[in-house]
Amino acid sequence: MARAAIIGGGVIGGGWAARFLLNGWDVRVFDPDPEAQRKIGEVLDNARRSLPGLSDLPLPDEGTLSFHDDLAEAVEGAEWIQESVPERLDLKLKVYAQIQAACEEGAIIGSSTSGFKPSELQEGSDRPGQIVVTHPFNPVYLLPLIELVTTGANEAALIDRAKGLLSSLGLFPLHVKKEIDAHIADRFLEAVWREALWLVKDGIATTEEVDEAIRMGFGIRWAQMGLFETYRVAGGEAGMRHFMAQFGPALKWPWTKLMDVPEFTDELVDLIADQSDAQSGMHSIRELERIRDNNLVAMMRALKAQDWGAGAVLNAHDAGRKRDAMPDIETADLAQPILTLARAVPLDWTDYNGHMTESRYLDAFAGATDRFMEIIGCDADYIASGGSYFTAETHIRHLGECHAGARISVRTQMLLGQGKKLHLFHSMYEGEELIATCESFLLHVSLETRRPCAPSQEIEDSMARIAAAQSGLEYPQGAGSSIRKPVPMAE
Amino acid sequence: MARAAIIGGGVIGGGWAARFLLNGWDVRVFDPDPEAQRKIGEVLDNARRSLPGLSDLPLPDEGTLSFHDDLAEAVEGAEWIQESVPERLDLKLKVYAQIQAACEEGAIIGSSTSGFKPSELQEGSDRPGQIVVTHPFNPVYLLPLIELVTTGANEAALIDRAKGLLSSLGLFPLHVKKEIDAHIADRFLEAVWREALWLVKDGIATTEEVDEAIRMGFGIRWAQMGLFETYRVAGGEAGMRHFMAQFGPALKWPWTKLMDVPEFTDELVDLIADQSDAQSGMHSIRELERIRDNNLVAMMRALKAQDWGAGAVLNAHDAGRKRDAMPDIETADLAQPILTLARAVPLDWTDYNGHMTESRYLDAFAGATDRFMEIIGCDADYIASGGSYFTAETHIRHLGECHAGARISVRTQMLLGQGKKLHLFHSMYEGEELIATCESFLLHVSLETRRPCAPSQEIEDSMARIAAAQSGLEYPQGAGSSIRKPVPMAE
Repeated sequence: MARAAIIGGGVIGGGWAARFLLNGWDVRVFDPDPEAQRKIGEVLDNARRSLPGLSDLPLPDEGTLSFHDDLAEAVEGAEWIQESVPERLDLKLKVYAQIQAACEEGAIIGSSTSGFKPSELQEGSDRPGQIVVTHPFNPVYLLPLIELVTTGANEAALIDRAKGLLSSLGLFPLHVKKEIDAHIADRFLEAVWREALWLVKDGIATTEEVDEAIRMGFGIRWAQMGLFETYRVAGGEAGMRHFMAQFGPALKWPWTKLMDVPEFTDELVDLIADQSDAQSGMHSIRELERIRDNNLVAMMRALKAQDWGAGAVLNAHDAGRKRDAMPDIETADLAQPILTLARAVPLDWTDYNGHMTESRYLDAFAGATDRFMEIIGCDADYIASGGSYFTAETHIRHLGECHAGARISVRTQMLLGQGKKLHLFHSMYEGEELIATCESFLLHVSLETRRPCAPSQEIEDSMARIAAAQSGLEYPQGAGSSIRKPVPMAE
Repeated sequence: MARAAIIGGGVIGGGWAARFLLNGWDVRVFDPDPEAQRKIGEVLDNARRSLPGLSDLPLPDEGTLSFHDDLAEAVEGAEWIQESVPERLDLKLKVYAQIQAACEEGAIIGSSTSGFKPSELQEGSDRPGQIVVTHPFNPVYLLPLIELVTTGANEAALIDRAKGLLSSLGLFPLHVKKEIDAHIADRFLEAVWREALWLVKDGIATTEEVDEAIRMGFGIRWAQMGLFETYRVAGGEAGMRHFMAQFGPALKWPWTKLMDVPEFTDELVDLIADQSDAQSGMHSIRELERIRDNNLVAMMRALKAQDWGAGAVLNAHDAGRKRDAMPDIETADLAQPILTLARAVPLDWTDYNGHMTESRYLDAFAGATDRFMEIIGCDADYIASGGSYFTAETHIRHLGECHAGARISVRTQMLLGQGKKLHLFHSMYEGEELIATCESFLLHVSLETRRPCAPSQEIEDSMARIAAAQSGLEYPQGAGSSIRKPVPMAE
């Protein structure tokens, strides 16, 4: 079993511990803080609920976590030693001397330092080649970025081993080949932090307004393409040189309080345009626009399901229009199957060929069931009061296909709605074409006992009203059918 | 029908046109560029494929788009006039004079300017109160942020009307009450742009490395919480004041080339800490951590489905482990139901109570079907060659519940695999407990004709091998069953 040593716990050290532990490593922790065990335990709780499900495969069994009062004991036999002690160079150098006195010569010592250059950390060491910067981002158990900063003292084989090992933990090692204070990402964070302090200090914006200005706009863009690729797309077919020519003059304008500006020479423009070609030139601008839009839609809809940030804006927009868009028990023609879903197929519901994927049919049908429940009075308030319907069985039949952007609708016939039982038959259409059906059998349950029970009188009354109105409808084709026991074909 | 005028097309004006048009407004465009119609058409193509599906309701029917050679004709009768002409103040002032000579006195004139203050745009106008800054972010048809910047000349009623109208388009108007060059968001973009130019110029990082440093780390954080709320969480229970005390000294360090630094006084610390309390104080740090992690997992898994950025890292990590984690046709015990899925239930598969949502059972079962297909030889290469299986029918029975983080597995019995027919019975377990079953009937199809056809000989052989090995298994309980035609209970 591979073993890692975590020197310095806290939020960052704890995040490293979680990465190793949940990927099957044994982890030894050294931290003189008497609270270290509690703090790391809290980070581990968060990591255990969020990290394993990121993958579509099971993670290995967790390794063993142990706490050690003696640094030498913690680092002994460790393949990786991660240092996350406070940002004081003298302290870090003292810790490295202690680590190197006890650890294997082949072990990798990574520092979580935000600011120090690896050459500073290697100074005075007998084995400087063992020490690298591996700067993570909080929460370390989720975000993939590790800035791996090295010097000439680090051999290529060690750097390759560090990259491979970090990748095996699900991390993304970004090799920074030329060291600089604060590496790369924190320089941007620092610049934005300074600008934000000015804006708040000068009374232009509150902290909340600063956050909205980020997360409702460029923050979502940066989560998927970063800065240069985003601008490449914005520049359009005219290309990166054109974009820079447009943007160049702003460098002379007072658009930030941070005014040390590189000279905007042809050489700089060429350098950036050539690098951008190497980075993104395999995609046309039109392709990049579509990749970007697919990513933005998928992330914004992910936030919609969490009702947060840009996703909460989408939900508020839907809520304001729901009354007009969808019939309720008073406005629907109850004698016909009731409109329970009407929407466009979103980009994140389709496969790489643009067809709606199998599970999203049930996503749509489950939405139709939710709407039917609302119509009969099982709405958010009712559910908050302790009752709801659980699906017991579902039978889907696929009769056609549909694509991203298709306007689909679902109409719902109630086959039975009485007592605790609710039996629905959903028909999904694109235009007039029937593309799928879904028969659902639900039971009304108490959310406390999670056992079946009778619904409220209001729901019983609504169901009776719909049953009476729909009594003239034929039993729908396909309802009550099963997937037949197969008879093998003659050989 | 409400009507908007778009003065100046291009990517930004086109994005505004799409927002209005797809939300049911009539749109008149004035742009002397002979290419305007083509350019706006391209933006509209992108908007039509991505915007409607963002919502869980249908958008209204599209309004009517028309192009006009005469500015006066374009703005006549318009409720909203959006100016997106090039960033030259003299040009903008000339355009406003023309607009105001022809438009309704009650119309709102919004400027897409990135840099000019509204007082500059209002200068010399008879009706300055009609002119505001409404600065959007590309792609305008998807990103919600609009910086609404006003001056004392704008009456409260007009500002409210502008906010309501922007919200009705699904936008998020951020009211910037104190005007400043470049408003808020672009000041951050400008600061990062300047820092990035330095990094590239100095040879520290390439454009690609800059982008990775953003999108693999803080970019994902910023997409959901922005800057201050992110730091509030990082600061932990000790609070924002503590965080700032830690971070303060970095302002004196050369962590950016952009060095104009606000003085780090107690007043500034108090101001920020108090604003942060007002913004986020309704959630404990532990709650914020969990909200953050839910958002990050949901967004990273959204990117995983797109195989992009941080999501591509997750896929690469899974691919490297798949061989070890999952049996194939050579390593599986074919005489038993075959392990086709093993994973933890991710946070984005659960409802607000932490239970796995209905449609995600089918997500998991569809994953099991995909894995079974791989096992018999219908893998990515085979599918690329033109054949695949389509699901015709699915019957799910729910027997238990499971929560986020639960380790679930699916084992698959083949009921029939012969010719074009594939009939599977999946059983989902949490530990030893059977929590759901899914019977699936699939047909092998040609992806070109989308009609059923025989699979390859290799697939036929694999299916025959599994059929022979599983011939001793009992027909599973629940297979072949239907949701019975309901018999109403006695009244």
